[in-house]
Amino acid sequence: MPDAVGSFDRARAALGAPDAAAGADALALHDRLTKPRGALGGLEALGVRLAAVAGACPPPVPEPATVAVFAGDHGVLAEGVSPWPQEVTAQMVVNLCAGGAAVNVLARHAGAAVTVVDVGVATPVEPAPGLLDRKIRPGTANLATGAAMTGEEAARALDVGAEVAATAVAGGARCLVTGDMGIGNTTPSAALIAAFTGRLPEEVTGRGTGIDDSTWARKVEVVRAAVDRATGQGCDPLEILASVGGLEIAALAGFAVGGAAARVPVLVDGVVALAALLAAAALAPPVVGFCFAGHRSPEPGASMALGFLGLDPVLDLGLRLGEGTGACLALPVLQAAAKVLREMATFDGAGVTRKT
Amino acid sequence: MPDAVGSFDRARAALGAPDAAAGADALALHDRLTKPRGALGGLEALGVRLAAVAGACPPPVPEPATVAVFAGDHGVLAEGVSPWPQEVTAQMVVNLCAGGAAVNVLARHAGAAVTVVDVGVATPVEPAPGLLDRKIRPGTANLATGAAMTGEEAARALDVGAEVAATAVAGGARCLVTGDMGIGNTTPSAALIAAFTGRLPEEVTGRGTGIDDSTWARKVEVVRAAVDRATGQGCDPLEILASVGGLEIAALAGFAVGGAAARVPVLVDGVVALAALLAAAALAPPVVGFCFAGHRSPEPGASMALGFLGLDPVLDLGLRLGEGTGACLALPVLQAAAKVLREMATFDGAGVTRKT
Repeated sequence: MPDAVGSFDRARAALGAPDAAAGADALALHDRLTKPRGALGGLEALGVRLAAVAGACPPPVPEPATVAVFAGDHGVLAEGVSPWPQEVTAQMVVNLCAGGAAVNVLARHAGAAVTVVDVGVATPVEPAPGLLDRKIRPGTANLATGAAMTGEEAARALDVGAEVAATAVAGGARCLVTGDMGIGNTTPSAALIAAFTGRLPEEVTGRGTGIDDSTWARKVEVVRAAVDRATGQGCDPLEILASVGGLEIAALAGFAVGGAAARVPVLVDGVVALAALLAAAALAPPVVGFCFAGHRSPEPGASMALGFLGLDPVLDLGLRLGEGTGACLALPVLQAAAKVLREMATFDGAGVTRKT
Repeated sequence: MPDAVGSFDRARAALGAPDAAAGADALALHDRLTKPRGALGGLEALGVRLAAVAGACPPPVPEPATVAVFAGDHGVLAEGVSPWPQEVTAQMVVNLCAGGAAVNVLARHAGAAVTVVDVGVATPVEPAPGLLDRKIRPGTANLATGAAMTGEEAARALDVGAEVAATAVAGGARCLVTGDMGIGNTTPSAALIAAFTGRLPEEVTGRGTGIDDSTWARKVEVVRAAVDRATGQGCDPLEILASVGGLEIAALAGFAVGGAAARVPVLVDGVVALAALLAAAALAPPVVGFCFAGHRSPEPGASMALGFLGLDPVLDLGLRLGEGTGACLALPVLQAAAKVLREMATFDGAGVTRKT
């Protein structure tokens, strides 16, 4: 087990830029393949980005993939922002380790491995196959009334994420997929999105896994108070992450930077992962060039984060589950984009006449 | 080799309705799985429809899949509606049989077999592995100046499509995917969409594989003349299909009805396949309940056909290639929808608490 301490700083220091020349090669290669120019639309754009991430044209197929599901609890649940009890986080960790959650099904279907990482589940979790115990504290504090965690705790969570990414890549993973589990985690996600994009609390706050109007109004006020407190204390991204974030969210930010440092594509899920990516981008801006958005969550903050980060999602199927489900569902499309560049015939090679 | 004659009429006679009870069972099962109600969005809707198609909950996974690429040429090319020369159809048939076209790459990626069917390529095509010779005539007549084909020829093409579907299902296929190859085939597709939906020629006519403004204007006038002629002669769907359609388009219509008759999901590609499905729906309305839209082509007629048929596409990635590429790319999502219903844990089974 590698020492997690310093993993994030090491990854951040190793972060380069995507390889523009490899991307340009992929653009040019697409135009020699037996199809009208640009006819594969967004699939071609994905292939170009994969080439730039890998620094190679054609890019390697992003497989095998590892989905890391970071789990943590949230003190803000005390404000009544979710109809789900906190114990469900730990119960779902058990379900994830047993292979029965939605992300397990979709990861198996896409040929991806699943790792579950406890960075901050409030209740004890029994050891299980596929579960990493990296608990930093048993849930965050209530961000409605004070900082969710200390800067030091947030930094440790970043290290955990970067370590998990490095370990997965060392084990052969060539694509990292973000996953999350944490009852109440759309509230810190909304706060982070508001803090990092400048959008209003009522714009970024959604219905999560299903809340009524009065709960939504309470959630907006919680987000407003948290963002006011965090941004009133300065602009340090780590302090904002600590003040209004979550343990699994900070770990996800570290995971993305760790994957980017290894020049492996990072396939990002929904609103929680995007909130983490905003924090990651504030801490280490080049990370975004290595990230791919799996889908557009109907949570309003997700679209705002996607727009802010300049990412076009692969899917738009109304998934609002998290766990990494939307990213896993998009994985075959990402892999297909690489295969188009690797396997399609060229006009010259196939003896096909070009258009006049 | 089964006799194609009468295949379409036999399939039409065998056509039932999707099984509403199995669909309702899938709706109810989704609500017992360990996720918030409806949280898998469009994926749940696909699962419900798969259950109704198969008449079973959970539905079988739609695999293995067979992509049938029907190829034909179009006399309307004489009007200058495409910058691509007619010989490209035959060249691409060779490329498809050699495995180098985009749909070959995407089908392999999704684990689907590819069958290429010559129903009307204008030039001779050498026999090749994976190629079925079902040529009805060497290309259609110019639909700008008269009927593209006779009603009898259109009926034979319907039979070819239904025969190919029946043969694929007899060989073990549990999902049929539509593919097409035919230089110029967005023109008959636009005409069919206008004729069957009542939309104006300038609304349904797009840029195909890439044309300039003056070519587009010419294409619109061709579509207008064809639609005026076809609809002025009555409302018989077979006569409209013969008058303004294409041989590969008629075969695709038969293929969809053949799959539906076998209660196998039919995954439909872009604007050409949707034009065929409009014709199929006019001839055999229940077919639509067995069809799934793989993607939203940027061709304007595609969205009009999707709306008319009430189909929500899986993907919206700006693909405008045809061949079955968009449908193949969506195939893993369709399969995932079945696996969610088959493999996810229930709240009771996993010991997960429900929301309050």
